[in-house]
Amino acid sequence: MADSPNCDLKSLSPLQLFERVTEQGEKVRALKAGKAPKDEIDAAVRTLLSLKLSYKTTTGQDYQAGLPPKDLALVNNGTAKEEDEDLVDPWNVQTSNAKGVDYDKLIVRFGSSKIDTDLINRIERAIGQKPHHFLRRGIFFSHRDMDQVLDAYENKKPFYLYTGRGPSSQAMHVGHLIPFLFTKWLQEVFDVPLVIQLTDDEKYLWKDMTIEKAYEYAKENAKDIIACGFDINKTFIFSDLDYLGTSAGFYKNIVKVQKHVTFNQVKGIFGFTDSDCIGKISFPAIQAAPSFSSSFPQIFNGKENIQCLIPCAIDQDPYFRMTRDVAPRIGQPKPALLHSVFFPALQGAQTKMSASDPNSSIFLTDTPKQIKTKINKHAFSGGRDTIEEHRKYGGNCDVDVSFMYLTFFLEDDDRLEQLKQAYTSGELLTGELKKVLIETMQPLVAAHQERRKQVTDEIVKQFMTPRKLAFEF
Amino acid sequence: MADSPNCDLKSLSPLQLFERVTEQGEKVRALKAGKAPKDEIDAAVRTLLSLKLSYKTTTGQDYQAGLPPKDLALVNNGTAKEEDEDLVDPWNVQTSNAKGVDYDKLIVRFGSSKIDTDLINRIERAIGQKPHHFLRRGIFFSHRDMDQVLDAYENKKPFYLYTGRGPSSQAMHVGHLIPFLFTKWLQEVFDVPLVIQLTDDEKYLWKDMTIEKAYEYAKENAKDIIACGFDINKTFIFSDLDYLGTSAGFYKNIVKVQKHVTFNQVKGIFGFTDSDCIGKISFPAIQAAPSFSSSFPQIFNGKENIQCLIPCAIDQDPYFRMTRDVAPRIGQPKPALLHSVFFPALQGAQTKMSASDPNSSIFLTDTPKQIKTKINKHAFSGGRDTIEEHRKYGGNCDVDVSFMYLTFFLEDDDRLEQLKQAYTSGELLTGELKKVLIETMQPLVAAHQERRKQVTDEIVKQFMTPRKLAFEF
Repeated sequence: MADSPNCDLKSLSPLQLFERVTEQGEKVRALKAGKAPKDEIDAAVRTLLSLKLSYKTTTGQDYQAGLPPKDLALVNNGTAKEEDEDLVDPWNVQTSNAKGVDYDKLIVRFGSSKIDTDLINRIERAIGQKPHHFLRRGIFFSHRDMDQVLDAYENKKPFYLYTGRGPSSQAMHVGHLIPFLFTKWLQEVFDVPLVIQLTDDEKYLWKDMTIEKAYEYAKENAKDIIACGFDINKTFIFSDLDYLGTSAGFYKNIVKVQKHVTFNQVKGIFGFTDSDCIGKISFPAIQAAPSFSSSFPQIFNGKENIQCLIPCAIDQDPYFRMTRDVAPRIGQPKPALLHSVFFPALQGAQTKMSASDPNSSIFLTDTPKQIKTKINKHAFSGGRDTIEEHRKYGGNCDVDVSFMYLTFFLEDDDRLEQLKQAYTSGELLTGELKKVLIETMQPLVAAHQERRKQVTDEIVKQFMTPRKLAFEF
Repeated sequence: MADSPNCDLKSLSPLQLFERVTEQGEKVRALKAGKAPKDEIDAAVRTLLSLKLSYKTTTGQDYQAGLPPKDLALVNNGTAKEEDEDLVDPWNVQTSNAKGVDYDKLIVRFGSSKIDTDLINRIERAIGQKPHHFLRRGIFFSHRDMDQVLDAYENKKPFYLYTGRGPSSQAMHVGHLIPFLFTKWLQEVFDVPLVIQLTDDEKYLWKDMTIEKAYEYAKENAKDIIACGFDINKTFIFSDLDYLGTSAGFYKNIVKVQKHVTFNQVKGIFGFTDSDCIGKISFPAIQAAPSFSSSFPQIFNGKENIQCLIPCAIDQDPYFRMTRDVAPRIGQPKPALLHSVFFPALQGAQTKMSASDPNSSIFLTDTPKQIKTKINKHAFSGGRDTIEEHRKYGGNCDVDVSFMYLTFFLEDDDRLEQLKQAYTSGELLTGELKKVLIETMQPLVAAHQERRKQVTDEIVKQFMTPRKLAFEF
């Protein structure tokens, strides 16, 4: 993307524009405070006014300092949505609420089902052990047809897991691990095959990146995924750019999906426009196709109709709503889904972490020192402004990012509950809570780095080679 | 497509609608002449009136017997074009002129270059032999960058040939042979590799056809193509559905093209709409990709940038205009092109033959008797209404389909010229000219059938196996 302040304004989201105006406003104030030359101040003011105009044109609202744009969905898709509604699609997650996206509303809007106590209990009975804390704590909170998967499992019918990642940069952050950690647990408790799609073609299409670079990121990311501990005999990891040219079944399913989805439909679902390249427009079929077992003849012995279960963050649901719509029309079962919440940025739960902002995330490559500094400096606190006030009124776990991170990574339920009570009562200070998080994340990331070192190029190659897995079909 | 007279009217082209009205008019006349029951006549008249209304709605013109719809391009694309302009795109070829499409105008409109005497002479010098009669007679009449191909050839630089076919039905007609006969000649005189694309995925996307059926047609059509006499050591034939899943290079080029073409562009070039499926919208990239040698690493030893020459009918040019536009942006050479005229339907040169109308074509499966009957019964004549008038004024070779066919298939220049003069002067009667055509086509089709019988499934498999050809790169 160009750096010129004007030429790329049209490609900015309302929130990005809002941030630009805010930044420019601060710049003008700084120039005035620093008694800069008049022409310099004037130029900065002109830029500010032009940014404000762009903001108004894009959002239909006047810029108001400290008040991010509302009704983003309206601006984005041109369709009216409820005021205060969160923006959630595969490329954007935005909310004005510090607690994060309202997931109960999202379930209603997306038409999925809540993972309730009954379902969690049923999973516990089926697998004969305590469900993963991601389920117990509502981190995986929504599903589609999980009952059918359990029916199949209880009737000894096979199913398989499918998840994926868009390899947008070499380094992954801890938030990227969530679907993989959960998928690994699912694979272990259900003992089923797993396919992991690396959409390097998607990244090539969406980013300013060569095909070679996208494929390189795919292989690098595969190392981090493998380091989560997947069983090489039960797991197939594939890059689209690679696998499309080696599979007898994948392209056939892609073209089947592509025949049954119109531009009107992808426009409605993904907000594509006439100016988008035809690669983006047809890409959703490529993310859809691994939902059908015939895309992997080498694993399923050519069998069609084996049920698929997709654990993923809720922002990927639009792809699979489309897939489920197409499935019966091409004679395939609808994939079932388990949806997770987003992993919040260090700065707060209004948006998810981004691999392109190093300070929004704890990266899997961070040193213990970097982890400590980032948490201390950037983790948004739900604590009070002074120790006295904090002791008196207590902290707010609902908006405290350190506490949120602990719900993801601290497995001990009792300890987490203790921390919550101590922080809410004011007994535990922000710095102390952050210390717990630092002590949780440092060994976790270090252990990951240790495991990743063991993942040689040869191991990656084995995982990415189309082959039979340790299951008979 | 449904048979009901009304439900499919919207999918008919103006010319097809025109033919429906004409047929129905004849039916009404026949019923009246045969003194049919009044209610039967009334029903036929109601259908006729409804067809005329559809015709008017679609074309904006009143139906006039014997006067096919004008300004078809306007009707088709909704964009104003010159009156009397021919409609030429990959799915439609329509003109109101009995001589056929105005190819000189088409060269101007498409921005290609005429194959003139200078170029034909240069080809003759380069190959050291008389050019094919398709070149001498203007059947291949237009080109793009053929000079560059000759430059390369004269400098001992390699190039390769690429042509293709959409396998829409099991039986091919003689018109389908034109690009293949010419390509075979090019391959022989230049001694270069040849790739032949069978777009079974396109047919699956466009037609009401299963993937399996489309692939079956591809293999059947490959037999007819092989029967033209291609060298198995120098020719690779591939089905998209098959090859996409076996090539390390093909999909990468497809996605590169797809990144550099927007929906707006394919809308402008191919007339796609928002209601078209995303498969159609992204398909042009699949026809574009074989223009780049890196789509065939097994043939070109992974080399990029080997010049491609595409012999094809002019209706395929829109795909390659798009390809040539994209090529420099993905660091590839633009493919060169040689364009042929259309092969006329037996009924006249207003449209090209169609595999879906058995009487519009001489099929490669026709018996000698069928060939004789079809030519005698359906071949549009440029002769006069009575023998006396014919002897007095002579026949018109410009619109006579039998004579046109002879320009395609009668290789003897002197004999063709004799026939032309004798027919134009009135010395040769229509029946006599048709007899010459029958005697030309019968052995030609029989010989093709004989060669096709020799093409076993095993031979097809060999041609369609990705492999090194008899060239070093």
